[in-house]
Amino acid sequence: MPDQTSHKPPGDGLRADARENRDRILRAAREAFSQQGIDVPMAAIARRAGVGVATLYRRFPTRDALVTEAFAEELTHCVSVLDEGLADPDPWRGFCTVLERVCLMQAVDRGFTQAFLTDFPDQLDFAGERARAEESLALLVRRAKDAGGLRQDFEPSDITLLLLANCGVATGAGEEEAAVASRRLAAYLLQAFRAETVAALPPPARLDLGRIHGAGG
Amino acid sequence: MPDQTSHKPPGDGLRADARENRDRILRAAREAFSQQGIDVPMAAIARRAGVGVATLYRRFPTRDALVTEAFAEELTHCVSVLDEGLADPDPWRGFCTVLERVCLMQAVDRGFTQAFLTDFPDQLDFAGERARAEESLALLVRRAKDAGGLRQDFEPSDITLLLLANCGVATGAGEEEAAVASRRLAAYLLQAFRAETVAALPPPARLDLGRIHGAGG
Repeated sequence: MPDQTSHKPPGDGLRADARENRDRILRAAREAFSQQGIDVPMAAIARRAGVGVATLYRRFPTRDALVTEAFAEELTHCVSVLDEGLADPDPWRGFCTVLERVCLMQAVDRGFTQAFLTDFPDQLDFAGERARAEESLALLVRRAKDAGGLRQDFEPSDITLLLLANCGVATGAGEEEAAVASRRLAAYLLQAFRAETVAALPPPARLDLGRIHGAGG
Repeated sequence: MPDQTSHKPPGDGLRADARENRDRILRAAREAFSQQGIDVPMAAIARRAGVGVATLYRRFPTRDALVTEAFAEELTHCVSVLDEGLADPDPWRGFCTVLERVCLMQAVDRGFTQAFLTDFPDQLDFAGERARAEESLALLVRRAKDAGGLRQDFEPSDITLLLLANCGVATGAGEEEAAVASRRLAAYLLQAFRAETVAALPPPARLDLGRIHGAGG
């Protein structure tokens, strides 16, 4: 597990305009990385952010620094969503909250899923974070089943199924409708995941979380 | 509505090898059209099908003939699925059967959705067929609600939601798992669509069927 202190935004203490530049660069970097991969030229990121190359290098002296920072916030956010879900005294509510929030993040921030699930940033211990996320999700599932909220035939791979479905909805619905459509899909699926829904299911697909980054989400 | 007789496969009566060539050309054409649009060179289709250009032109003297034939079978299939669903004496079962079958077609044949939903083949009355499909779907929904099987807050746009979700699952699950994953997703969503599932839903997204062809399904 990487040092958590490396995840706090180091933009604190910057002047307002410097802070704004920094945020624009990080946003541009995330977009560029998720569309073109992390080998995209630094100059292209500066152009996309509307800042000079000198400004970009003043904020982020190396590509590694930029990659790490671009994904750190999302990683922190994702980990915190899982932690909050696990801390909920009502396991079923915790389970629902996590999936609703992850779906919404995936719907409104197209770089989010790649950021968390792709293997490319060797600089960060993404594989370690992903393994930790999978453990947390498995625990979330087990608790929600034990508490009687989640149906017993729910499989961890059904979380991947949900995220892939959500990815299709977010991609297809277009920017304006993505959040509304994603929320509706998540609500339908969470209702189907309830223990009271007793109808039999066909067998689960073999889908690990790594499936998602290939799906454009 | 186009003349239904134009939709019967005119390959009947061909010798086995000629028939096989014809099927390979149609398969290659559907793939090429759905990946690259219908302006793809005829030579590229011949190459993809593994036949000579002369053979391609002997079977399909014009591009129009090829486009029409490539999509005719899927159109006929889709229309027949809807007609069978509407003919089912149990409206809820008819509704489920249609959605299950359409999801499976979408999962195993990536060109299917584009074929039916894209606007490009001006040669066929696709807009007319699509309008007819939307009417049939609306009727299917109304009957299933009236019979008490389908929840009252189900919206026709939820069919698009299902198809977009299914598209994401089929794309992300990979060829081997696509059918299994699609079947499981459809089962979950159909259970959520049941009238007994009484929990409130967030508002529906504004999603007409045309949304789907942009989503890579």
